[in-house]
Amino acid sequence: MYFTSERRLDGDVLEREFILGEIPGILWTPGSASTSKSATATDSGSAPAPAPLILLGHPPLGLRKMYPRLVDRARHFAAEGFATATIELPGSGDRPRRPAAERACADLRRAMEAGEPVTDQIVDALVLPLVDEAVPEWRTALDALLSLPEIGGPVGYSGGVISIGIRLAVVEPRIVAAGLFAGSLVPRAMFEEARQVTVPLHVLLQWDDERNDRQAALDLFDAFGSREKTLHANMGGHTGVPRFAGDDAARFFGRHLK
Amino acid sequence: MYFTSERRLDGDVLEREFILGEIPGILWTPGSASTSKSATATDSGSAPAPAPLILLGHPPLGLRKMYPRLVDRARHFAAEGFATATIELPGSGDRPRRPAAERACADLRRAMEAGEPVTDQIVDALVLPLVDEAVPEWRTALDALLSLPEIGGPVGYSGGVISIGIRLAVVEPRIVAAGLFAGSLVPRAMFEEARQVTVPLHVLLQWDDERNDRQAALDLFDAFGSREKTLHANMGGHTGVPRFAGDDAARFFGRHLK
Repeated sequence: MYFTSERRLDGDVLEREFILGEIPGILWTPGSASTSKSATATDSGSAPAPAPLILLGHPPLGLRKMYPRLVDRARHFAAEGFATATIELPGSGDRPRRPAAERACADLRRAMEAGEPVTDQIVDALVLPLVDEAVPEWRTALDALLSLPEIGGPVGYSGGVISIGIRLAVVEPRIVAAGLFAGSLVPRAMFEEARQVTVPLHVLLQWDDERNDRQAALDLFDAFGSREKTLHANMGGHTGVPRFAGDDAARFFGRHLK
Repeated sequence: MYFTSERRLDGDVLEREFILGEIPGILWTPGSASTSKSATATDSGSAPAPAPLILLGHPPLGLRKMYPRLVDRARHFAAEGFATATIELPGSGDRPRRPAAERACADLRRAMEAGEPVTDQIVDALVLPLVDEAVPEWRTALDALLSLPEIGGPVGYSGGVISIGIRLAVVEPRIVAAGLFAGSLVPRAMFEEARQVTVPLHVLLQWDDERNDRQAALDLFDAFGSREKTLHANMGGHTGVPRFAGDDAARFFGRHLK
């Protein structure tokens, strides 16, 4: 992993773009967990305490397109003392295209526009290969991020494609809490994986999400094996998550990562 | 309304029992909104700002039995600057018994013990007369409470028999926000009233509530007419609401009553 750019945002958040192998990503660190260069400029001269890390998930629309929402979440979490990081998903942004995924995406669009049911085949083709490819990349990113002195554990995962969050929560022991967004299509196979999730969960549901089946989202919440799981449902469509719901999510991570 | 006792609890909360007509009740006020006697003892000599009021609903088990849970909620809200008050429900505690309600309650118990379905007739007989009798009493209590200089508007309603909260939210314009507990049987007629509710709502649901039908609770949440409504579902049974869920409710009232 090497950094390609660095700038300081309002509110004392350091934003650094990085490249990990061929995967671009962004790391945001709060003021108190700045680079070693800044740390030596402090009065005490001692390194600041490492910040707990939250991985920011996102839909496969490309980091550039998602940037405004990602940086908003990053600032929100930084204000609570969390570092956040994200990487480009397979097939998104400038990464090599995935023809099979694009065909599945076209099939999905066609079905939805025709008002036809979205079949299991479409959902599986759209999501399962993405999960299989993305999860090892996020774990590699985690290795690299946790090697930085300004980043500490424990680690949370927040938002994005819920199936990626489920798989990560099952296979990655360094993730100790997950805030998931019940806003994407979920293959049936993921319900079985959901039963294996045991970390504390905070699940957001937009009650009138036009892209999501509410009952399926409730069934998925029911399936999670975690003893502590909370569902926060709010009114409005897919992108209408109210501001206070973000505050609740930050408090959830505060309870489990600090 | 006249006060029958007064004592100061830890955390600078003033607890006063009162009688309103023949109905006993309890008022808790935070330190900053104390009685006029205490107010004159302050340095400035001016009266403290009136505290916003939250009416504390509860199940019809009697104030004495419910006291530990009520005082816990009252302290929690007082720490956030809210006054809270509650009154005994019709037929509970030392109030005259309601034979028809007791018959309905016995029918309910019989049906549940026999594993039989709880019929609409049982639910209606149990809940509708209670709502019809209790709601005017809570409104009378509100008149009396808001006449005290240490209590100000706006007013919230929190918890208790959800049908009482629904009716109050519909008919009482001084209630501007309601935190409801989806943990009691709801007559079908109340679903129609729920559609008329327009104040911001914060609904708690215990996912494994042994006394409640989860799907009915979700249907009721869906029915509410409010543009801002939030459902917080947590794991556990009827009385297992986690502490952080109470914090969330206090923040909800903070957003709407301050």
